[in-house]
Amino acid sequence: MKFIKSKSWLALSLLSLAGTASAAETAVPEISVLLNTFFFLFCGVLVMFMAAGFTMLEAGMVRSKSVAIILTKNISLYSVAGIMFYLVGYELMYGDVVSGFIGNFSIWSADDTGLLAKTSSDAYAASSDWFFQMVFVATAASVVSGALAERSRFWPFLIFTVVLTGVMYPIVGHWTWGGGWLTQLGFSDFAGSTIVHSVGGWAALVGIVLLGARKGRFDENGNAITIPPSSLPHVTLGTFVLWMGWCGFNGGSQLAFSSLNDAVSVSNIFVNTNAAAAGGVVATLFASQLLYGRLDLPLVLNGALAGLVSITAEPSIPSVGMAMVIGGVGGLIMMTATSLLERLRLDDVVGAVPVHLAAGIWGTLAVALVNPEVTFVAQLTGVVAVGIFTCTFSAIVWYLLKVLRGIRLHQDHEELGADLSEVGLRAYNID
Amino acid sequence: MKFIKSKSWLALSLLSLAGTASAAETAVPEISVLLNTFFFLFCGVLVMFMAAGFTMLEAGMVRSKSVAIILTKNISLYSVAGIMFYLVGYELMYGDVVSGFIGNFSIWSADDTGLLAKTSSDAYAASSDWFFQMVFVATAASVVSGALAERSRFWPFLIFTVVLTGVMYPIVGHWTWGGGWLTQLGFSDFAGSTIVHSVGGWAALVGIVLLGARKGRFDENGNAITIPPSSLPHVTLGTFVLWMGWCGFNGGSQLAFSSLNDAVSVSNIFVNTNAAAAGGVVATLFASQLLYGRLDLPLVLNGALAGLVSITAEPSIPSVGMAMVIGGVGGLIMMTATSLLERLRLDDVVGAVPVHLAAGIWGTLAVALVNPEVTFVAQLTGVVAVGIFTCTFSAIVWYLLKVLRGIRLHQDHEELGADLSEVGLRAYNID
Amino acid sequence: MKFIKSKSWLALSLLSLAGTASAAETAVPEISVLLNTFFFLFCGVLVMFMAAGFTMLEAGMVRSKSVAIILTKNISLYSVAGIMFYLVGYELMYGDVVSGFIGNFSIWSADDTGLLAKTSSDAYAASSDWFFQMVFVATAASVVSGALAERSRFWPFLIFTVVLTGVMYPIVGHWTWGGGWLTQLGFSDFAGSTIVHSVGGWAALVGIVLLGARKGRFDENGNAITIPPSSLPHVTLGTFVLWMGWCGFNGGSQLAFSSLNDAVSVSNIFVNTNAAAAGGVVATLFASQLLYGRLDLPLVLNGALAGLVSITAEPSIPSVGMAMVIGGVGGLIMMTATSLLERLRLDDVVGAVPVHLAAGIWGTLAVALVNPEVTFVAQLTGVVAVGIFTCTFSAIVWYLLKVLRGIRLHQDHEELGADLSEVGLRAYNID
Repeated sequence: MKFIKSKSWLALSLLSLAGTASAAETAVPEISVLLNTFFFLFCGVLVMFMAAGFTMLEAGMVRSKSVAIILTKNISLYSVAGIMFYLVGYELMYGDVVSGFIGNFSIWSADDTGLLAKTSSDAYAASSDWFFQMVFVATAASVVSGALAERSRFWPFLIFTVVLTGVMYPIVGHWTWGGGWLTQLGFSDFAGSTIVHSVGGWAALVGIVLLGARKGRFDENGNAITIPPSSLPHVTLGTFVLWMGWCGFNGGSQLAFSSLNDAVSVSNIFVNTNAAAAGGVVATLFASQLLYGRLDLPLVLNGALAGLVSITAEPSIPSVGMAMVIGGVGGLIMMTATSLLERLRLDDVVGAVPVHLAAGIWGTLAVALVNPEVTFVAQLTGVVAVGIFTCTFSAIVWYLLKVLRGIRLHQDHEELGADLSEVGLRAYNID
Repeated sequence: MKFIKSKSWLALSLLSLAGTASAAETAVPEISVLLNTFFFLFCGVLVMFMAAGFTMLEAGMVRSKSVAIILTKNISLYSVAGIMFYLVGYELMYGDVVSGFIGNFSIWSADDTGLLAKTSSDAYAASSDWFFQMVFVATAASVVSGALAERSRFWPFLIFTVVLTGVMYPIVGHWTWGGGWLTQLGFSDFAGSTIVHSVGGWAALVGIVLLGARKGRFDENGNAITIPPSSLPHVTLGTFVLWMGWCGFNGGSQLAFSSLNDAVSVSNIFVNTNAAAAGGVVATLFASQLLYGRLDLPLVLNGALAGLVSITAEPSIPSVGMAMVIGGVGGLIMMTATSLLERLRLDDVVGAVPVHLAAGIWGTLAVALVNPEVTFVAQLTGVVAVGIFTCTFSAIVWYLLKVLRGIRLHQDHEELGADLSEVGLRAYNID
Repeated sequence: MKFIKSKSWLALSLLSLAGTASAAETAVPEISVLLNTFFFLFCGVLVMFMAAGFTMLEAGMVRSKSVAIILTKNISLYSVAGIMFYLVGYELMYGDVVSGFIGNFSIWSADDTGLLAKTSSDAYAASSDWFFQMVFVATAASVVSGALAERSRFWPFLIFTVVLTGVMYPIVGHWTWGGGWLTQLGFSDFAGSTIVHSVGGWAALVGIVLLGARKGRFDENGNAITIPPSSLPHVTLGTFVLWMGWCGFNGGSQLAFSSLNDAVSVSNIFVNTNAAAAGGVVATLFASQLLYGRLDLPLVLNGALAGLVSITAEPSIPSVGMAMVIGGVGGLIMMTATSLLERLRLDDVVGAVPVHLAAGIWGTLAVALVNPEVTFVAQLTGVVAVGIFTCTFSAIVWYLLKVLRGIRLHQDHEELGADLSEVGLRAYNID
């Protein structure tokens, strides 16, 4: 998903705008535009639906007293992401390059022709690209909400989302997909193991450190106490939705579907994306049985997601077998990180940090294993730079919110559950 | 989605039917057919899945004693809609024009070539169009079921659905998308704020007036009593599914994907549809917090849907910012209509009338604000004419059903819940 | 979905691999590849999501003490199917023909060009085909898990899945879609009523015979006792997801979208697939009301699925009305088979055998009614041959697993529920 948006459009006015063209010379570029645009819309819809996947996953993982509020957070953050990316984010990410670090501050709008061109033969409707980019930023924001569930306050979280989707993610995006300094350095992150998932993961990590654990998550000696999820079917449904959506997430990051090369690459991406998730499932399934003597379903579901995050930085080049290995290792790294968080007494309700940050780092570094043109140093530089930036920025925002408004629920409300204290309804009323 | 079906097909037999053509002159129209057809199928599948969205939304909004019956209603109405639109509806809507008010009564079948042509360069497979049109009529029927939930009887409701999908919706459709008198008057409703959503909304309104409120919905003084929804995760999932499906609903109403103009227009539609829903969410979120001091999740979800209904009449022309405003205003109108219904002691279980009728009227009138070629008078005429027709027709059908069979559950069955009295199973059996 | 994979690729190197071609002669085949590939990916994603549909359906049908384990089984079997079809299955199914009975044993990999060609004008990306074929094998495996729910052990089931997806299904597939002896005999099964659904159904039937019924499913006199499903909304959601996915399942089995004939055929398939499901719903709805005096929702949902299975062997040729009849009859056959299983004291938790096997046989035989080129004898031969092979093979595998490891849960664990005994978590924790 790396390209520099060119402001000098194709001379597309030469093409017939109505119906079909009669001469092959003009018809072929027109068909490219149609296929590229259709493909963006198809993949964009799949990624859009990932918002539902995150929502169901998070709603299933929290206790039943905190379900309505997490539903409210998810539909709100998706809406806010779309608004902020329109008002600020897109141009900040893809606008004219200012020394490779930041774009411009302006509201997005399509050109008069409504078309956007990467190269003279490879254009698409500008709005289809915007739609696809917008659902990506929503994904980054979705990562955060689950980690902080059950004890963060609604409006401070939403303000954090405003900053994340309007400024923080777009700046990282500008460094990379916007053609900025990390791209110039040779950093490669095809669909966003770092740019999307680690950004969300770092922001979540800083949040859970500042927020503290839910009451009852650790006993007096600091031992973790399992808090049973309210609905495992919803967690599983959410995982399957994310798995499906990831085909669009990684596949659409090819950014074109107008050449044989595109067709082959995108198809390989679909297969590898699926293979990495399958690898993550099987690795965590065996590990869970061997280490814990049981089939830890939430861990296995996170194994699928960790596999998906791991392959996101380079889903096109690996063989299918290699994709399974990358996903499997990602699953095991996620398990390790889950244990580590517990030992550090950090409370990540859905495992967002192990899945999106730990596996995201692994996936980003693993690019150097499969793509000879990419160096480990460049990848590590990207991981570290994005980590430092996102942590610092997040810490400042979370800290300001904490001082100015408070970011944690009043302890009575936490005990009662935010569903009753903030939404005024219980999520389930089953007689 | 406005076009007049031409019975004089293209001389498509000139085109090679097997594989690909060798000369560019014939290849290009063939590719148009392929892209138009593929696009119809893609959007049709998205709209088809809206049936699942309505189902989950309604199942989550009712009490747990009325869940199985609403599930049964929804899968049945979707099936009946498909059968009736095949047997009667499609030809009544798009068949040969009889003075602009009604089509012909015959069973639908594709032509020998299986192709349908709007213009000589813009054809598609006839069945792909039928599929897309059919899922629209199912949407109109879905609107009704939720409003009448928990106290309407199953079979009378299904008979009403037969009439709605076989006759009532197709007649309104003939006046408009079939090229009838409203279209000739200048009425414009791109994807059906009035034609689909208000038709469902009016039919629902007449139904809830004739049925009366659920027992316990209003106290002796007529004050509304909140009946808590059985499952907010299902309501939220349903809303996200509808949101996704709406991309196909509005985008597919472009009815073609074979020119640069189509690609740009459809992409703008996807972006604006999303923007209107986001506007609806944010507007109702703020309003709910300010007016009621809480985050009223069902209202916020209906805010998303009201935003979607509002933009449906014209999703292509507005700027993204304008789409957000149209959606936001739609959300506030929905809130107002919700309060109004309560004051009138009308019991709309899912808020179908505020969402689909109130926001549908607003969206239809708003076309005159953004499209200089459309007059407010033409839009108002369409709203009023469709309203009078649908209300009258619905009232007659509901009244006949009431007299002949009864439309309301026996009060013992209502108290027990139709799940036990009609389905013989409880929807949830969770130990 | 019948074709013989040719190892002699097209001389596709003649085509420009980058961007678009300048001469119409090369451009046209390139566009065919793009459309075929895009269509495979679109349909493949729909079928992939059927895994979520099966999961929700099964999770809703079992008791709440067996939900987490069925979720674990489903995500695991989908993962295993993908791995096994890569390691063994695909080449065994589509590899070089060894006397029409079996392919070769090797790991799948795409050719250097990444393209696969059926004919010189009809190629597509090899991975897109692999992806589409893989989600089919996962479907066959999904059929089995539901039937055996609540008393089968996890790891033996997973080993059975390894064999089913790696060997059993691919051998049947080789006989048919791989160009083997059944195809040479004139057997026709467009999208897999027999090849996918009956294979899963036979394997499930053998499994439930060997496993025995759940405790409490039949009383001392052998009368069936209804075990209420844990969540009918989840069963309904699963059914809708399968319904949607089936459009891709049947439509994608056209295996191309590059000619007018493809566009017309695929569109007819979408319409007929929907019509058959609608027919199944309406037939079982009436039959349930007339025979049992109630609206038996699980039966109606299985009516939809039986309709879908019935039309799968030939979704392209029948008229829409005929498709409704085929689906409706399929629904009634499913009802009959459901009663029969109960009388035989066989416990099929989700009705997989009535839906996938009984309706699958009907659908396969019904091809002879609508396609004059297909004989009843050829169809019956296929049904019987696949039945004998799958039953024998399944019986051997299940029997070995029973002897070596045991396939049934310890009775204490069955009583407690596998969620606590194998997963260590309850699926629902709703206060």
